[in-house]
Amino acid sequence: MKIIIDAMGGDFAPEQPVLGALEALKEYDAEIILVGDETKIREIAEHHQLSMDNERLSIVHTEEFITMEDAPLSVIRQKHGSSMSIGLRMLAEGKGDAFISAGNTGALHAGSSLIVRRIKGIKRSAIASVLPCANPTLLIDSGANIEVDAAQLHQFAVMGSIYMNKQFGVEDPRVGLLNNGTESTKGTKLQLEAYDRLTGDDTINFVGNVEAKQVPYGVCDVLVTDGFTGNILLKSIEGTASYLMKQIKGLYTRNALTKLSALPLKDGIKQLKSSFDASEYGGAPLLGLSKPVIKAHGSSDATAIKNAVRQAIRFINTEIIVEIVLQTVKTPEPVSAETTAAE
Amino acid sequence: MKIIIDAMGGDFAPEQPVLGALEALKEYDAEIILVGDETKIREIAEHHQLSMDNERLSIVHTEEFITMEDAPLSVIRQKHGSSMSIGLRMLAEGKGDAFISAGNTGALHAGSSLIVRRIKGIKRSAIASVLPCANPTLLIDSGANIEVDAAQLHQFAVMGSIYMNKQFGVEDPRVGLLNNGTESTKGTKLQLEAYDRLTGDDTINFVGNVEAKQVPYGVCDVLVTDGFTGNILLKSIEGTASYLMKQIKGLYTRNALTKLSALPLKDGIKQLKSSFDASEYGGAPLLGLSKPVIKAHGSSDATAIKNAVRQAIRFINTEIIVEIVLQTVKTPEPVSAETTAAE
Repeated sequence: MKIIIDAMGGDFAPEQPVLGALEALKEYDAEIILVGDETKIREIAEHHQLSMDNERLSIVHTEEFITMEDAPLSVIRQKHGSSMSIGLRMLAEGKGDAFISAGNTGALHAGSSLIVRRIKGIKRSAIASVLPCANPTLLIDSGANIEVDAAQLHQFAVMGSIYMNKQFGVEDPRVGLLNNGTESTKGTKLQLEAYDRLTGDDTINFVGNVEAKQVPYGVCDVLVTDGFTGNILLKSIEGTASYLMKQIKGLYTRNALTKLSALPLKDGIKQLKSSFDASEYGGAPLLGLSKPVIKAHGSSDATAIKNAVRQAIRFINTEIIVEIVLQTVKTPEPVSAETTAAE
Repeated sequence: MKIIIDAMGGDFAPEQPVLGALEALKEYDAEIILVGDETKIREIAEHHQLSMDNERLSIVHTEEFITMEDAPLSVIRQKHGSSMSIGLRMLAEGKGDAFISAGNTGALHAGSSLIVRRIKGIKRSAIASVLPCANPTLLIDSGANIEVDAAQLHQFAVMGSIYMNKQFGVEDPRVGLLNNGTESTKGTKLQLEAYDRLTGDDTINFVGNVEAKQVPYGVCDVLVTDGFTGNILLKSIEGTASYLMKQIKGLYTRNALTKLSALPLKDGIKQLKSSFDASEYGGAPLLGLSKPVIKAHGSSDATAIKNAVRQAIRFINTEIIVEIVLQTVKTPEPVSAETTAAE
């Protein structure tokens, strides 16, 4: 099994992807291919006094990479020599079994749709993020497709259910539709249509509309929405948690007494904080593609990259894509003319 | 000045609205008209050994009221004898200067548009809620109009700016557009068009797109969005804060030591919790109407109702509506044919 890692993607690249790759090599049996600037990659290993001498490790050299500011389509246009573009092509050509990048999300989504290609019958690939909740909840789409139709939401529900079952071992995952109320009459035309479709599909366990305030309590395992609303939900949970944790830290560090008081609570607070840390769950899978692609968080450290490798291995081993293909064949959707890959 | 209060609206009606009205009578100079079941209203006062004998207090009797399950249009159709319907008609007819209800939001929005009427030139009235943030941020629309156009978002920005200036004393309020990224190219057609309109209006202080994760840090004073997205944002902030505070409480109450440790932090935690309590800021104004209507939180207690009375008094005194009328005259919008009142 070969995992391709974009060494140049993310806020702390190439250092953290390289360190994460080296950690993963120690823990897992997989081969790893780092795509990026070979000189820099070797310098990082040297600096940390880590050996690169491992027959399961190889480097594909390129000096070009996608920045956070680059347009999504740059990955197939101006920057086809970038680490992300090369990695995706290697995956498409079967030179690896999964691709991981902490780089530009829009570019990864567009590039993987165009280079790796979607599963036949899947209208849009989506980014699925595990929400920091009482129990892991998969938000699909969490930001890739800002405008979707009800048929696409339906496919997100099916793919999300398969992923939560295979990757997290959730039996008969509960699917919720993010909406502005729990009643079946709530939402715009999009939610009303999606509600009907989801209700009508007995291959999934649809539990109805879910309000945003219920989400942190883990009322469903798969939460279906368009990418615009998904972004707003994900970011507001992250922002509120980060703001509150900062305020609480402020309370503790007020004076000597409060500092002392905080000691017996420290572990619990730390645990709570880490439960709101997306990197605990590895990265966000792009579902609907014909090969596994994982978007690691932009601020991924070595551990997050290592976790993404573990996730990629499980993604491959549990044959999630085979299952999505089988389900898509069972419930075919007409592919509409306006369904383009790059949005 | 006469404030009309829906005695039958909200989760704790009629008790809490009645108690809130009696508290407000003591604190403020205004006259109060309670609309609701007179027998029940008098029973509540008696039960709490409070006198109803005040020349500034009157009761308009009705036994009918709008429930949380009633359809929005029931306020003008099946239930025109309800406390909400009567209260709104009294406001429209000049028998009072402001109306407060903690009842069904959809009914209040539809009813006030149809009975109280919008300001000429305003395409939609909106519900504006103060977000629990580092500093008060007015979210407009927070849930009334689930689908809007860019011209409506523009009017929300103008009305929200006036409200934050007059009601909260914010000089030159910073207006942000809720979006899935800060770049000007982000969002759907709606956000792109709204961005252009807001940039082009030099009567407001537009600071650009705002991501959901920035919101709790108070990066703007007025946050403009459609009612669907506004609902998702508001509810996810509330849900995340409530979930986290519960978790933290769980840490404290784990054992005797943690309980003891929590003592020096207690006040701070309490304060933090109350900063996420919407009732601190009174209710949510419906902006765009020709008279002041305030939606108090469904779970309003007497204090929240009293605060809503204070807010209504300030709403009237600061002539917010006059200012909105003046601004609307300055920048007229063609009223499109499909603009109907009741959504």
